[in-house]
Amino acid sequence: MTSSISPLATPFPALPSIAGVTPHIARARYKNWDRADLSFVTFAPGTVVAGVTTQSKCPSPEVEWCRTHLPGGAARALVVSAGNANAFTGHKGRAAVEAITAKAATHLGCAQSEIFVSATGVIGVPLPIDKAEAGLDAAFSSTPCGWAEIAAAISTTDTFPKGAMTQAVIGDKTVTLVGVIKGSGMIAPDMATMLGYIFTDAAIAPALLQQMLSAANKTSFSCITVDSDTSTSDTVLAFATGQAGNGLLTQITDAGADAFQAALADLCRQLAHLVVKDGEGATKFIEIAVEGAVSDESAHRVALSIANSPLVKTAIAGEDANWGRVVMAVGKAGEPAERDLLAIRFGTTQVAEGGLPVEGYDEAPVAAHLKGQEISIGVNLGLGAGRATVWTCDLTHGYISINADYRS
Amino acid sequence: MTSSISPLATPFPALPSIAGVTPHIARARYKNWDRADLSFVTFAPGTVVAGVTTQSKCPSPEVEWCRTHLPGGAARALVVSAGNANAFTGHKGRAAVEAITAKAATHLGCAQSEIFVSATGVIGVPLPIDKAEAGLDAAFSSTPCGWAEIAAAISTTDTFPKGAMTQAVIGDKTVTLVGVIKGSGMIAPDMATMLGYIFTDAAIAPALLQQMLSAANKTSFSCITVDSDTSTSDTVLAFATGQAGNGLLTQITDAGADAFQAALADLCRQLAHLVVKDGEGATKFIEIAVEGAVSDESAHRVALSIANSPLVKTAIAGEDANWGRVVMAVGKAGEPAERDLLAIRFGTTQVAEGGLPVEGYDEAPVAAHLKGQEISIGVNLGLGAGRATVWTCDLTHGYISINADYRS
Repeated sequence: MTSSISPLATPFPALPSIAGVTPHIARARYKNWDRADLSFVTFAPGTVVAGVTTQSKCPSPEVEWCRTHLPGGAARALVVSAGNANAFTGHKGRAAVEAITAKAATHLGCAQSEIFVSATGVIGVPLPIDKAEAGLDAAFSSTPCGWAEIAAAISTTDTFPKGAMTQAVIGDKTVTLVGVIKGSGMIAPDMATMLGYIFTDAAIAPALLQQMLSAANKTSFSCITVDSDTSTSDTVLAFATGQAGNGLLTQITDAGADAFQAALADLCRQLAHLVVKDGEGATKFIEIAVEGAVSDESAHRVALSIANSPLVKTAIAGEDANWGRVVMAVGKAGEPAERDLLAIRFGTTQVAEGGLPVEGYDEAPVAAHLKGQEISIGVNLGLGAGRATVWTCDLTHGYISINADYRS
Repeated sequence: MTSSISPLATPFPALPSIAGVTPHIARARYKNWDRADLSFVTFAPGTVVAGVTTQSKCPSPEVEWCRTHLPGGAARALVVSAGNANAFTGHKGRAAVEAITAKAATHLGCAQSEIFVSATGVIGVPLPIDKAEAGLDAAFSSTPCGWAEIAAAISTTDTFPKGAMTQAVIGDKTVTLVGVIKGSGMIAPDMATMLGYIFTDAAIAPALLQQMLSAANKTSFSCITVDSDTSTSDTVLAFATGQAGNGLLTQITDAGADAFQAALADLCRQLAHLVVKDGEGATKFIEIAVEGAVSDESAHRVALSIANSPLVKTAIAGEDANWGRVVMAVGKAGEPAERDLLAIRFGTTQVAEGGLPVEGYDEAPVAAHLKGQEISIGVNLGLGAGRATVWTCDLTHGYISINADYRS
């Protein structure tokens, strides 16, 4: 993590341990740094797993490994390497994944397919197998750590560790969900994004967990963007140990499944917001709500067109009430829109409607709103019932500084 | 124009006058500045016109006016206002267009439909009719000016005036084409972009001129991007006075039509490159050539995905040979791609092929290439015969500085 902490950072919350989950960290020294950069989290036998991964056409071998073994639904460990994405490394990268999963499986006496892996960092450099193996050895012999240490160990350009928790009641049992996530740049989840891990003691069938995670993803990770750049390595995995003792959830209609779905969606949204709040160079957290579109999908695309517009994002960085750039971003989205039906608000102030500025528009409340850290933009297309909300951050000198010299 | 000139700027060339075209400028003072910001260019009777305009769903009333009257094919004047885009201004904006075109038509004794108009600047503020009318009166009584003055008068955040010329031989006559253009930010032409004006003395039927301009647009203005933000006001118009005395071109198969088409395409490409070289904050001019795609259209979309990636653009700003970000941008483009067939070059150096870095890759020549002002990136997808080339610039602190405080 870099030394300059995001002004939108929030303190790492107190997170409980999850029965059946044991986190460890170690120093693999994938880069020339003295910090933990290898995470090794073990799961009790019987733990199930679900996941969503990047839609990139150039996925990392770690992503491919997860895709291959997620249908098995069983997990005994997670290994995360930070500082090297191992993406676009061909047979060398695949050999590293093979070595890591084999070593962990041997250590735990489980099937290799029960080891899940991720890597994050520079693209195009094969993950050094010797460092990974030495790191794993160190992790095997380490004492368990807390969630804050895991959140830090999976980070790269992140400026603060990110975690959250929720709970749900299923029958007479309370189940707990804990999540950690990393991500700051190269954030434009198409279907899933970043590295995010969710741990719960709930008893739930893997197919149902997958169904719920995919649904939660659509209203959380798929609704954020920092810079419109979708990573090769994005992965969100959810592990459920079943040790809470609730009756096994197998169908969305089971008693308590709705509560678990809501808790999972809430957790995913919290984690997604934390990534935006650590967006590279971010000084403002921006919510963009589009309604009146011809469909929810159309509203989502219009919202992302606004959220990814460099001119909208720099205007907000400059606290400039330049709402004309929102008009521009609606116009370029390629979605149905009628200029003369369009309405726009900043904060709670309507600035334009019916295709022109509102009569007697007073910029003062908008300017005041833009001085805050949480910015709200609303767009009504006036065409239908489609709606969507996305979250992003502003575009500042900090983004340029971080990315014009990241690899060096 | 701002005081800090793009390091990629080129001197304004010596451009000849075009028989039948008379340029004028005036100070309408649309902003609080003391510079010419109204251009008034008159055309001899018989001049024909063609044009391409933005595909934005929120076009300015000037764009709508041009779309309405381009099918008429006849032009007697062009009026360009700089400092106020008059976009998203509803009936007030339409009234300004009506007033300007009526006043110019009365002055020239022509049909109102023969007056073409553009405006560029802030969105959402109705163009002040009194300033436009006073500016027109000043222009009517002014002495004609040169092309450099027009190029400056149509500019907003541009840092240098932009113009170019080409010639073509048709039969025994040489025809001349002159173009001026403005544009620096909000540049992501989908079909046409910016404000660009082309003047020629060639005799050519308006339908053929339109056909040729649309074709030239596809390999020029539609192949550049500064910031992925498509303007509400993009317009390129071509005016042909017919005074060169060549035999009238009416079909693409006419003798000399191919020469004229080539000259027009060359001029459009020169003008498009000038806009990229004045991209907001630009320090590098970047050519991205994609081949091996399943189609030309697919290659174009992959090339734009790379050209619009903030991470690719900041890496080049930092002279960082971080070609993994090109892999990322290919992967996110949503187009057919196979990671293990992908090949990438920077300059003339192959950096990756077959899904991993080339054996014995030496970064030194790539680093040297990146220190230059003209950067070339090549991508071969290895799938088919589709190819496309696009041009963009790097993303620097200058872009943030310009756009976080443009309107104020």
